[in-house]
Amino acid sequence: MTKPVNIAIAGALGRMGQAVARTLDGHALARAVARFDRPEATGEDLVTRDVALEAAQAVIDFTLPEASVLLAEACAARGGPAVVIGSTGFTPDQIARIDVAATKIAIVRSGNYSLGVNMLMGLVKQAAAALPASEWDIEVFEAHHKRKIDAPSGTALMLGQAAAEGRGVDLEAVSDRGRDGVTGPRTEGDIGFSVVRGGGIIGEHSVLFAGEEEVLTLSHSASDRGLFARGAVAAAVWAVSQPPGHYDMQDVLGFRR
Amino acid sequence: MTKPVNIAIAGALGRMGQAVARTLDGHALARAVARFDRPEATGEDLVTRDVALEAAQAVIDFTLPEASVLLAEACAARGGPAVVIGSTGFTPDQIARIDVAATKIAIVRSGNYSLGVNMLMGLVKQAAAALPASEWDIEVFEAHHKRKIDAPSGTALMLGQAAAEGRGVDLEAVSDRGRDGVTGPRTEGDIGFSVVRGGGIIGEHSVLFAGEEEVLTLSHSASDRGLFARGAVAAAVWAVSQPPGHYDMQDVLGFRR
Amino acid sequence: MTKPVNIAIAGALGRMGQAVARTLDGHALARAVARFDRPEATGEDLVTRDVALEAAQAVIDFTLPEASVLLAEACAARGGPAVVIGSTGFTPDQIARIDVAATKIAIVRSGNYSLGVNMLMGLVKQAAAALPASEWDIEVFEAHHKRKIDAPSGTALMLGQAAAEGRGVDLEAVSDRGRDGVTGPRTEGDIGFSVVRGGGIIGEHSVLFAGEEEVLTLSHSASDRGLFARGAVAAAVWAVSQPPGHYDMQDVLGFRR
Amino acid sequence: MTKPVNIAIAGALGRMGQAVARTLDGHALARAVARFDRPEATGEDLVTRDVALEAAQAVIDFTLPEASVLLAEACAARGGPAVVIGSTGFTPDQIARIDVAATKIAIVRSGNYSLGVNMLMGLVKQAAAALPASEWDIEVFEAHHKRKIDAPSGTALMLGQAAAEGRGVDLEAVSDRGRDGVTGPRTEGDIGFSVVRGGGIIGEHSVLFAGEEEVLTLSHSASDRGLFARGAVAAAVWAVSQPPGHYDMQDVLGFRR
Repeated sequence: MTKPVNIAIAGALGRMGQAVARTLDGHALARAVARFDRPEATGEDLVTRDVALEAAQAVIDFTLPEASVLLAEACAARGGPAVVIGSTGFTPDQIARIDVAATKIAIVRSGNYSLGVNMLMGLVKQAAAALPASEWDIEVFEAHHKRKIDAPSGTALMLGQAAAEGRGVDLEAVSDRGRDGVTGPRTEGDIGFSVVRGGGIIGEHSVLFAGEEEVLTLSHSASDRGLFARGAVAAAVWAVSQPPGHYDMQDVLGFRR
Repeated sequence: MTKPVNIAIAGALGRMGQAVARTLDGHALARAVARFDRPEATGEDLVTRDVALEAAQAVIDFTLPEASVLLAEACAARGGPAVVIGSTGFTPDQIARIDVAATKIAIVRSGNYSLGVNMLMGLVKQAAAALPASEWDIEVFEAHHKRKIDAPSGTALMLGQAAAEGRGVDLEAVSDRGRDGVTGPRTEGDIGFSVVRGGGIIGEHSVLFAGEEEVLTLSHSASDRGLFARGAVAAAVWAVSQPPGHYDMQDVLGFRR
Repeated sequence: MTKPVNIAIAGALGRMGQAVARTLDGHALARAVARFDRPEATGEDLVTRDVALEAAQAVIDFTLPEASVLLAEACAARGGPAVVIGSTGFTPDQIARIDVAATKIAIVRSGNYSLGVNMLMGLVKQAAAALPASEWDIEVFEAHHKRKIDAPSGTALMLGQAAAEGRGVDLEAVSDRGRDGVTGPRTEGDIGFSVVRGGGIIGEHSVLFAGEEEVLTLSHSASDRGLFARGAVAAAVWAVSQPPGHYDMQDVLGFRR
Repeated sequence: MTKPVNIAIAGALGRMGQAVARTLDGHALARAVARFDRPEATGEDLVTRDVALEAAQAVIDFTLPEASVLLAEACAARGGPAVVIGSTGFTPDQIARIDVAATKIAIVRSGNYSLGVNMLMGLVKQAAAALPASEWDIEVFEAHHKRKIDAPSGTALMLGQAAAEGRGVDLEAVSDRGRDGVTGPRTEGDIGFSVVRGGGIIGEHSVLFAGEEEVLTLSHSASDRGLFARGAVAAAVWAVSQPPGHYDMQDVLGFRR
């Protein structure tokens, strides 16, 4: 039994900060050693950022872009801990500042910390690279609840992007979305998207590779939104033994070399 | 063991006529006793229409609309055999003539003799009637091979129609097809359609009833185009013990009362 | 807009009583008008049983067998409200007492109030009756979380029972469970069971009707344990307009005539 | 457009030899240039083995073990063509002789030439290596036609083996097969197997990685037995540009380095 990794939670009062705390409660490989939030925040067990960073090997941060960048810079200045960022919506300038911080410490940043979806992206890219467009048609299917307002889902588009990268093509140029009516036969090389909306479906994604006599299907089904917290903790456990660098979940899972 | 039903095959030289013959070969409940085709046709074992009708309890006909109507009228005039029609594209006038013939003999006519799909239509209609639109969203999903030129498939639209009938609504008014982009939340009562195209997929259809905490899915998967022949033979076995009438596969399966 | 049905909640402090309250909060067709529990229980908003029964058109009861019987008898004595019972484990004598009470009022009693699963049972029975064993093989598949200790699930066995009833056979005599090793070819008429266990899967059930060239699959997927509360409320809405009788969810959904 | 690879077909009169010929008919990347069978065999277009090997860049062989070994040795002696072997049931001594031949020429040998299943094996191994047993349960599900006499299928066991290799465990030690009755909770690290038998199902395989809040499923569905011929041709196209070696389909698809 290895010693658990010591984790600090940034934005501890937020919805995701609380979810990370629940995930760490009784976790086999990691434990929460400090929780902090904005300086003016109050709450039981909250410590200051400096106390938290001193105690931790990794800090998990689901806050807002500028706060995440400042945290990354502070960690870089003190030579640690590693940082796992789940905030989204960074400007190119903010990303450049994270790149600089990542020359000193390991930083993982991703828009989706679900282990399963990230695993799926890597597998899809490989399969797309191995199965030629002349014989295999790629289709991305997704289903979500009735309240979702956009289609296809962002994750479906990420999966389509992974397939396009595997094939070395531009997703925009090969996307086939919203099929309806007299479409004519399928265009070779297209990546199709189909969308179901209904009830409370949390999230289903499938990528089909359809050949003439067989279909390979790679699927992910989510049943709880706590997934992201679990993924972020896994990233933190991984990050503490990495050299400085700006990583994402594909690195954590070993898909990028 | 009951005695097998004696079947004559019209259009015996056609692709479906041959498929019916293969299906009857060794069938537990029916057997081919005569094969015929157009008068000028020649082929081993072919007999004249009159000889065929004399020998048969039911005749299975996948030909062309006018030929099917003439066959139905001839059978009605002689008081049998029962007729199973798989031809499609009848005019209202031709259907009226079949209605007249059906006052004398049992006639089954359907555009899809797959037992499974017809079973599915009945189940979908019932489920749609029982599950209110305020809590259950209906989605029809289908997947077919890359050569198919229209979307959604005719069978998907039949399933959507069955759902709409179950709910007592007009399918056209509630169809949601080709979702793409910023769609806004799903409209209550809509029946959605989604479409996959790829490889050699013979035919997959699913109807989802998505509630907030559960999904009921009724699906059909075809793996061989010989399905239609099997369904037509089942209809013929059923028809020989029916009173005169113009039936379809929903009657054969007992869904219509 | 029809007026909402007034519901009293028995066992209001219990886990299911609370779930029923959450379900009624904002429900389109029903509303909670009174909550009660055992006489010694205390809690905000609790009223006495008599006050509750006076205010309600239906009472939903997830308690214990004897308490449920006494409640049914009390409601019968006063000529209402209708009773929906989710307790399980009744003795034959207790069921007989409910039968007596049900000569005065409408009582619904079921071990599973999921609308979807009950819908599925009715559809499975019909399909099994329509699709002969000589050409269609029935298989029941289920998947549950890793903590479940028995296999197949009780619901899988109920679905197998529905299939057996549809075919007019005894489930025990045709069950094929735990396939492994050199099994020989499948026995005609068998109903097979297969079981997946893993992770946190809440509950997946599928009944396959496998023909030579097609497969019909009827499936249910649960994503939240609050399903039972929703089903009980639907039963209550139905019950208030029924004549006296001892019903179950198959009646509520119109599958039994 | 590159020039098509010239293929000779061994065992050309056999069922698989004929399937390979059909696959090559109109193939984009390869073409049949010679067909041969045992010396005493007669048939249109058959040539002698020596004539065939002279004309070909690769030879595809679905015959019997000893014939395959002799063919490999003959090809090695003449310095080509490459050999793709689909025969099964080799003794260790025969495999050793193929190893020797493979020091001179490229030889691919596999018990399953379906591209999709082999792709799946590689993906399963990777996912099993990346997703720890403490949080992810692996289950292998398969469905086949009612005539299949063993369970789980050989391919299901290969997929289980791939998962076990990914985890670095012995499949025999962790297999959980034939679940039935009071099983107790799932044992961490087990690889479970479940089996459906019915109708004419050609072959469905799924490997589930079930986490607490998500499930990753990697699936393959076959719809035609001509798959093996297609895979063998793909292997032949690959083999002609490889250095001498004893390869399998994992090499062809780039999963083994």
